[in-house]
Order: sequence, then C-alpha cells, then structure tokens
Amino acid sequence: MISGWEGIREEVLRRIRVRDWPPGETIPTEEELAAEFGVARATVNRALRELAGAGVLERRRKAGTRVALLPVRKATLDIPVIRQEVEARGQVHGFTLLTRTEGAPPVPVASRLGLGPSARAIYLETLHLADGRPFVFETRWLNPAVLPKPLPDFGVVSANEWLVAHVSYETGDIAFTAEAADAREAAVLGVAEGAALFVTERTTWTAEAAITLVRLAHVPGYRLQTMI
Amino acid sequence: MISGWEGIREEVLRRIRVRDWPPGETIPTEEELAAEFGVARATVNRALRELAGAGVLERRRKAGTRVALLPVRKATLDIPVIRQEVEARGQVHGFTLLTRTEGAPPVPVASRLGLGPSARAIYLETLHLADGRPFVFETRWLNPAVLPKPLPDFGVVSANEWLVAHVSYETGDIAFTAEAADAREAAVLGVAEGAALFVTERTTWTAEAAITLVRLAHVPGYRLQTMI
Repeated sequence: MISGWEGIREEVLRRIRVRDWPPGETIPTEEELAAEFGVARATVNRALRELAGAGVLERRRKAGTRVALLPVRKATLDIPVIRQEVEARGQVHGFTLLTRTEGAPPVPVASRLGLGPSARAIYLETLHLADGRPFVFETRWLNPAVLPKPLPDFGVVSANEWLVAHVSYETGDIAFTAEAADAREAAVLGVAEGAALFVTERTTWTAEAAITLVRLAHVPGYRLQTMI
Repeated sequence: MISGWEGIREEVLRRIRVRDWPPGETIPTEEELAAEFGVARATVNRALRELAGAGVLERRRKAGTRVALLPVRKATLDIPVIRQEVEARGQVHGFTLLTRTEGAPPVPVASRLGLGPSARAIYLETLHLADGRPFVFETRWLNPAVLPKPLPDFGVVSANEWLVAHVSYETGDIAFTAEAADAREAAVLGVAEGAALFVTERTTWTAEAAITLVRLAHVPGYRLQTMI
C-alpha cells in the first residue's frame, strides 16, 4: 500500500525502472494517479515535482508529464578555503608566500580579468602545506582596484582566506583540468616534472569588476569528491 | 536610493565589502533594515534569504543574522551523457566496445559495489570518440541483478546512454582526479604513457543495491567547467 508523497515517488521510480513507463512515455495525469493511489492530487504533485527537479520526469505545458529520455543529473561541489579543506582531512594547514609582485599582467590574464592595457595587478605565489608537506601551489592575480584597503601582509594571512572573508563576490567561473607539472610546479611541490596534477582555475567578479584569477595545482593523489 | 530586494542585496553586499559590517558581525534586524530603507519587511527578508543561501550571511534562530566568517561557496555540475557532452562541443560522437566480459569482480570493485563474494558482474571497456578521435576511455562494472532484461548489445548502444535512459538511480558519488596514463590507457587513447588524464569515477545506486562503478579517463586537454 502506497502512502505519502515519498511512497508515490518510489512507485513512479519503480515503474520507470521496470519499464512499465519507458523513456519518452507520457505518464497518467495527476488526477488519474491520485485516484489510483487514493491520495490527494497535491500529494501526487509533490512527488512528480521532486522527480522533475531530479531530471527523471519532464513536465510540459498542456502535453502532460513524460519520462525523461536522458535525465541530466547534477552534482553540487563545495568550494571551501584551502585551510578548511586541509583541516577536514584531519591535517594541519600551513602556507608560505613565495612571491609577491605588482605590475601589468600578461595579456591573457588581463583579458580574463577584463583589465585595460594600463591596469596593474598584484601577483602572488603561495605554497599550501598539509602536515608540513606540499599540498597546493596557488598562483593568483588580484585586481587591486576592487580590494578593501589596507591590504594585509599575504605572508601572514593567505590571500585565499583573506579574500573569502573580506570581499564578497557575485559571480565566477571554475574549471578543472589535469596537467603535467612544469619545471617550476615540480620544484615547488617536490614532484617529478610531468607528474599529473589536478588543477582548479577560478575567476571571481563583483557586480562591476574582476576580483581575482587563481590557479590551484594540487599534489598527485588529490581527489575532489561529492555526492550526486 | 535603494529599491527592490535586489537593491537591498547590493547594499548589504556593499557594506560587507567596505567592512561597515565585518565578518562575524551581527547585522541589524529585518525590522530595522526595513525602516532604514523604507521598504516592506518581506523585501528585506527576500534579500537576506538570498544572501544566506549564497553563504554570505548566517541566520541563527533568536541570535539574529551575522556576516559569515568564511562563506563556503557552491558550484553545480551537470553530469550529461558523453554523447551529449561531445555534441555540445559541436562534434560528432561515436564509440567502440573494446571488451565485454562477465565474472566475479576484483575485491576492491566488489566492495565498492557492495557485492557478495559469489556475485557476478559485467565488465565493459568502451572508447568514446569525438569527430573520430579518442575522447574518453570508459571502464565500467555493472551489477546485472538490478538491470532490466534483456540487456542490449553494448556495442550498438553505449552502456553510458542505456543506463541513463533505462535505470533510474537514487544516489551516487563522484570523484575527480588527475592520473598518469598507464600503458593500456595510453594505447587506447593514443597518448604517451604517463600523460596527465582527467579522470571521473562514479558509483550509482538504486534504493537497494549498486548499479554501476564507472571510470572515465579523458584525453589530455579535457576541461570540466561551470559557474559559481
């Protein structure tokens, strides 16, 4: 006996699974299902909305609800600061500022950040440590125009953490790639040149201007995981 | 002059940015903000809920709303079938089934799938092509107990697509790593041994049992990206 919207969701999933309702098939209306299950239409509606949100069903105006041909599933990733990520592994976080310079960024960086030809940017290289061993090599360009002043000593507070705590951003993009360690990365991370590194690249923006472009090269063995 | 909930959201972000409201600070109540901005309390509520959802503010029962110390941002990833991913790049998808066997899986695989010692599983190796060139090398274990019968010819319909269309899943986990291509991967993908590959590993489950464990090794240069 089926009761509650969760019960109806289970039954709908079962029918899709055993192909009573194959992909692309229009399923009965909410009224028909409510009558069949002996529940309120709102209960059926709740279950179908849930399944539509998960991409299992497609609801179409007037044409009814059908089993999705190819549901696109979604995964949500948390983007924590590196200290929190290290601490969540039960390790101690540390970091060393290796480089801090200021000047006109290279053209590809300026273009990613939407900066004009005469704009200046701050460049930082930071090595993050987990239990004293290399964890992430962070290379970062900062747009000083959007940062609250005074700027801190980035050797004392990591730019990663300072930005999250002090600059709210509106939008950004993030990309993940696998890249062979170049000579500099290999030396900093203490790995062989050409080692496979998991790389995260992120650009963030206020409503008006770019804040930062950051590249995080992780030591071999790094794993980014989540639920789907 | 501030109007609409978006205007209030902007103003709250501005105050956080310029540190009128530093991290950890409890901000004025909704009533106070409504009076200050000359808007309905519901309008303030809408703006604050939005900012709490984005991790910028923390709302605590009775203790009021404060600026988050370290907002954790989230990114959402779409998990499309490989054919759709290739087609979204404007390329033609193709695939070749390289291996299909059935038998007792190795212990680590059985354990990831929650299978008993005598359970059998199907093993498939599929090479996905984009415009005729290697794109993803897919290695997959399937739990035949949960699959609708008859099984198709996986040389005609890719397991990736058939599963998405025919087996609804409830939960799963997904992990991303960078790995050096082993001899087999290098040969199949046509790259040098040791090349940096972006690898996705996914396990999916029905409410009762594992469906599949799949490993997708992408050609060098692959980029997974999304908005934050």
